[in-house]
Amino acid sequence: MSIVVIYGSTRPDGNTEQLTKYAIEGLEVEQIYLRDYKIEPIEDRRHSEGGFSDVGDDYNGIVERMMKHDTFIFATPIYWYSMTGTMKNFIDRWSHTMRDEKFPGFKDQLGTKKAYVIAVGGDNPHVKGLPLIQQFNYIFEFMSISFEGYVLGKASRPGDVSTDSRAHSAATAMNQKLKE
Amino acid sequence: MSIVVIYGSTRPDGNTEQLTKYAIEGLEVEQIYLRDYKIEPIEDRRHSEGGFSDVGDDYNGIVERMMKHDTFIFATPIYWYSMTGTMKNFIDRWSHTMRDEKFPGFKDQLGTKKAYVIAVGGDNPHVKGLPLIQQFNYIFEFMSISFEGYVLGKASRPGDVSTDSRAHSAATAMNQKLKE
Amino acid sequence: MSIVVIYGSTRPDGNTEQLTKYAIEGLEVEQIYLRDYKIEPIEDRRHSEGGFSDVGDDYNGIVERMMKHDTFIFATPIYWYSMTGTMKNFIDRWSHTMRDEKFPGFKDQLGTKKAYVIAVGGDNPHVKGLPLIQQFNYIFEFMSISFEGYVLGKASRPGDVSTDSRAHSAATAMNQKLKE
Amino acid sequence: MSIVVIYGSTRPDGNTEQLTKYAIEGLEVEQIYLRDYKIEPIEDRRHSEGGFSDVGDDYNGIVERMMKHDTFIFATPIYWYSMTGTMKNFIDRWSHTMRDEKFPGFKDQLGTKKAYVIAVGGDNPHVKGLPLIQQFNYIFEFMSISFEGYVLGKASRPGDVSTDSRAHSAATAMNQKLKE
Repeated sequence: MSIVVIYGSTRPDGNTEQLTKYAIEGLEVEQIYLRDYKIEPIEDRRHSEGGFSDVGDDYNGIVERMMKHDTFIFATPIYWYSMTGTMKNFIDRWSHTMRDEKFPGFKDQLGTKKAYVIAVGGDNPHVKGLPLIQQFNYIFEFMSISFEGYVLGKASRPGDVSTDSRAHSAATAMNQKLKE
Repeated sequence: MSIVVIYGSTRPDGNTEQLTKYAIEGLEVEQIYLRDYKIEPIEDRRHSEGGFSDVGDDYNGIVERMMKHDTFIFATPIYWYSMTGTMKNFIDRWSHTMRDEKFPGFKDQLGTKKAYVIAVGGDNPHVKGLPLIQQFNYIFEFMSISFEGYVLGKASRPGDVSTDSRAHSAATAMNQKLKE
Repeated sequence: MSIVVIYGSTRPDGNTEQLTKYAIEGLEVEQIYLRDYKIEPIEDRRHSEGGFSDVGDDYNGIVERMMKHDTFIFATPIYWYSMTGTMKNFIDRWSHTMRDEKFPGFKDQLGTKKAYVIAVGGDNPHVKGLPLIQQFNYIFEFMSISFEGYVLGKASRPGDVSTDSRAHSAATAMNQKLKE
Repeated sequence: MSIVVIYGSTRPDGNTEQLTKYAIEGLEVEQIYLRDYKIEPIEDRRHSEGGFSDVGDDYNGIVERMMKHDTFIFATPIYWYSMTGTMKNFIDRWSHTMRDEKFPGFKDQLGTKKAYVIAVGGDNPHVKGLPLIQQFNYIFEFMSISFEGYVLGKASRPGDVSTDSRAHSAATAMNQKLKE
């Protein structure tokens, strides 16, 4: 198994990264911090003459790195009850990649992948983060990605997540599953 | 009553705009197309020394225009079961504005506003769009904005939404309520 | 098309029935008021020796009447953010019927049916009723029933629902679709 | 702290009870198996002359026992993506109790309680059980009960839940929290 973590956080060493550390402890993983790259919002050209055209930002390179792995972990802080705009821009662009001849079979290949979600928020995430989990589930269903599990964590200030014992134990269970 | 529509679409004259037309017919509204502006993703600096700093993009100007109105309509295509990254970046930035001395009382003022949501998607939006509605509800609750109503529409190809009679009648009912 | 309405209400002439009237106006429908019948809670005997045994209440007769129709409308007040216990007991029993030799092909036959949901609640049903809609969607998906639409209405005191213009227009749109 | 478990299961020694055992291990708890009692569906008489009248079944006795404790665990199999009809009938009756002079201050007293939910289902409960969690959250919010945590477990055949490591670790974390 080969694992990539896609981070949607916009500041380093935050609670999302800390919670993810529990989940990937002892595992070799590639880590991609989306905030380090330039990713433009998608422009919907599905119905335009000529279709999509190359954007020329860092997006394609990230997809190439991601697709080398068979297990994806999407780790995002919960901003306004959803994934960060940074991560949303990344996922929105999949609509282009699905139609991009540079990535033939993109959707078919995704159908062989496994995915996990780690999401950390400050306002009752164990309940108010559930719509985000439902959305990830729909995304994975659409792409036939197998949704293997998720961890929600509660944290506001730096370091807070270490006090969410529920999140800690769920991340540890995820770690064990990833090691199987 | 003074109405502003915030559009999250990334292409002009799409189904979201068409459905919104039914909702605002006969009303004077200001329309803001987020795709016409440069809006950077937020960088979370809530816990950084010095806090947030000016970004210098078009975001502040849009907030100023929005806040002149007492009724907001958030109109977005559903990309991957959620609002577009373009609209998400706009809303993520509210976390800065809440702490921005250029916008004193931002949250208090939002607490006097009314909001509507219009969202159009291709993959069973009347069910798979519900997590998005729940998220908007949480956002509005957090800001004490009164959530007055929403319309979900189904459309994939340009013009499709005109065949969703449920959406059409809901948009017409919204129009009547907006005129009261 | 042949339509049956299954009512979960526990008092006559309530808001749920009133809203349903808009939806079925001018249509010939069979109406089943579950409160008029004795329906025991299911006893899960899927894994018991001998399996399920006959209960001898009114349930089977209701299923027979329901299955003669090709379009089902489930009309329920929202009690505690979900369908009434009266309606839940009815649906729980489907787990027996699926395994009941008196109803061979029950699930296959359901796969040819269409369903609508009408649900009326007092506490912000347009948002807090959404989990119920998601559950009906899962039920219908499991049975391959086609989920054609739903109406949520807001009402607390008798007659209240007539002031929910959104619900009224949605019920009218449902009525038009049922007449197609 | 004094704990009561309310079981909604309809067969003994099922997966829900087994998962609950992990959560209450080493704790003294009162256990109430709703299936052992006669609980009629509510008849909504909020708007009837004379209001609600005594039902004469086992419901009131169960409420009395429940209210002696300060922490409630609602443990239910997931039937059709929701709590069992057996448990739903019990909760529906709260609408009567809130207006029952035999239970003065019922709602106020609930506002001092803590609650947990344990729910076990066979069809992707970690995702399809989320609407049920949202509904419990709304119920607890309405009553000002503090929602302390939940565990979802996956199981179809007897004993299955022991293989859901995620559920096991979450139940263990709940156990630790209950012991604090």
